[in-house]
Amino acid sequence: MNQIVKVGLIQMHAGTNVRENLNKALDRIKKLADKGAQIICLPELFSAEYFCQTEDKKFFELAEKIPGGPTIKALSKAAKENNAVIVTSVYEKDKTGKLYNTAICIDADGKFVGKYRKMHIPDDLEHYYGETFYFEKGNLGVKVFKTKYATIGALICWDQWFPEVARLAAAKGAEIIFYPTAIGFQLKDPLGINETERQAWQLIQRSHSIANNMFVVAVNHVGPENNLIFWGSSFVSDPYGRMIAEAPVNKEADLIAECDLGVIPQMRKDWPFLKNRRIKLR
Amino acid sequence: MNQIVKVGLIQMHAGTNVRENLNKALDRIKKLADKGAQIICLPELFSAEYFCQTEDKKFFELAEKIPGGPTIKALSKAAKENNAVIVTSVYEKDKTGKLYNTAICIDADGKFVGKYRKMHIPDDLEHYYGETFYFEKGNLGVKVFKTKYATIGALICWDQWFPEVARLAAAKGAEIIFYPTAIGFQLKDPLGINETERQAWQLIQRSHSIANNMFVVAVNHVGPENNLIFWGSSFVSDPYGRMIAEAPVNKEADLIAECDLGVIPQMRKDWPFLKNRRIKLR
Repeated sequence: MNQIVKVGLIQMHAGTNVRENLNKALDRIKKLADKGAQIICLPELFSAEYFCQTEDKKFFELAEKIPGGPTIKALSKAAKENNAVIVTSVYEKDKTGKLYNTAICIDADGKFVGKYRKMHIPDDLEHYYGETFYFEKGNLGVKVFKTKYATIGALICWDQWFPEVARLAAAKGAEIIFYPTAIGFQLKDPLGINETERQAWQLIQRSHSIANNMFVVAVNHVGPENNLIFWGSSFVSDPYGRMIAEAPVNKEADLIAECDLGVIPQMRKDWPFLKNRRIKLR
Repeated sequence: MNQIVKVGLIQMHAGTNVRENLNKALDRIKKLADKGAQIICLPELFSAEYFCQTEDKKFFELAEKIPGGPTIKALSKAAKENNAVIVTSVYEKDKTGKLYNTAICIDADGKFVGKYRKMHIPDDLEHYYGETFYFEKGNLGVKVFKTKYATIGALICWDQWFPEVARLAAAKGAEIIFYPTAIGFQLKDPLGINETERQAWQLIQRSHSIANNMFVVAVNHVGPENNLIFWGSSFVSDPYGRMIAEAPVNKEADLIAECDLGVIPQMRKDWPFLKNRRIKLR
C-alpha cells in the first residue's frame, strides 16, 4: 500500500552574508514546495559559512535561542506559508550561555516540533573540523519528531558515522532520518583519499537505511568555503540502501524524492532487524 | 608502517556428501596456504548443503562437540600442517544436547582458540532460512580470538546485518571480522529484488569496515543447493569500505587479499569513531 512522502533537499553553498544565505534558503524552500516537496531539509548550519575551520570567538554571536531566535522564526513562517515540514541545524545558545549544534524540526503549520543537539562533535582542527571550540556535546539523547507527513529523526553530520544513533532513531519510530551536513574535500590531499572519503560517507549512511529498514536523507554544503571544498552529493537512500536521488558533487541543487513509507512495515517483516537484535548480550 | 596479513577465502559449493565437502575444503586450504594465505576462512556450515531450507531432524546428526568433534580435528590438523589460522562455522552439540551454529577459530599451530555461537538466528522458513528449528540463540556474547597473525572476530551470516555485533567485536580488539555465510537468491523472485538484496548484503558489511576502522571478510556458499542459489560474491573490504578482493557470483573461487593492519591505528586517530561514540545517552 503506497504511502508516498515527497522529501526536498536543498544542497547549498553558503556565503559570508548570513542574511543572504537565509533569503536564498527561504526562496528555495518556496520553489521546492511549489513542486510538491512536503519535508524540506537544509544543510547543517546553512545560514553561515562552515566556521569551525578556525577558532574565532566572533562566531559565537551567530548562536540564537531555540526556539525563539530569528532563524527559527523565519523558517516557521516559511513552513506555514508553504505547508512544508522544515529540518536543518541551527547554532543554539541556551539560557546559561552554553552553545550547541542543534537540529530543529518545524511542522507544516509553522509550529516548532522539537530539537536534537548533535551528540558526536568532531575535534579535528587539523582537518578543519574544530567543532569542540564551538559546541558542547549534545545532552538530549536521540529525538524523533512526529510531523504532518512522517515521523522523522534529525541527526547532524558527524553523527552519520555512528550506527548507534541511527538505530536509536529507528527504534524510537523514525521512518526517515535527515542528516543536515557540512563535509568536504581537503584542499591538499597528499594521501589521495578525498574521493574515497566521499564514497565512504555515502556508503555508511546507506547502510543505516538497510540496518533499520528506513529512508535516509543527507543534505550537504557544496563548493569552496575557506579551506574545504564541500562535496555536495546530497542523496536519499531507500530501505534497501538504494540511491533514489543524488545531487552533483560540485554545484547547488534542489532535489525531490518520493519515499514510500508503506515499504517500511513490509520490510520489517521480511528483514526483522529491529525485532531480532540482541542488545543485552555483549 | 606496513603490517600485512594475507587472508584466504574459500568460496565453496557444498554437495550432499559431508566427507567429500570436507576433503574439498582441506585440499583448498592447502592450496591457499601454499600461495601464502595466513588466515583462511570457509563458508558457514561448509561441510554440508545448507540444510535449514526444510525442517528435518535427520540433520541434527550432523552436530558435533566443539572442540573435540571430527570436523574440528580435521581442521586442526590442516591448520598445523599449513601453518594457517582457520575460521569457519560448524554445527555444535553441547553436553546437554543443545544445538548451536558455532564459529570456530583454530590457530596456525593447530590449537583450538575459541568459539562463538551465532546470536541472530533467522526464523524465515518461507524464504528457506528456517534456522530456529536447528539452532539455539548464541549465549556466549561476541568473542574475539588472538591468533598468530591478527586478533580477529568471527560472526556468522545473519549477524552481518546487525551493526551492534560488529561494533562489539571491534571494541574487544578485532582487527578483522570474518563472516562465514550462506545466503542466496530465491529461485522465484516475483519482486525482482534478488540483485538488490545481494548488493545490500555487501554494502552493510562494508559499512562495518568504515564504522569500526577495520577489515571485513565475508565468505559465502555458491551455486544451487535445493531451493536457493547461493550468490557467492565473497569479498574483503578495507577500513574505508573499499572492496579489495571479490569473488564471482556464480562459481567457486579461492581468493587471497593483503590486509595492512597498520592502517587501523592510523585511521582510529583520524576517524576516532570507537573513541567518540556515546553509548550511554539514549
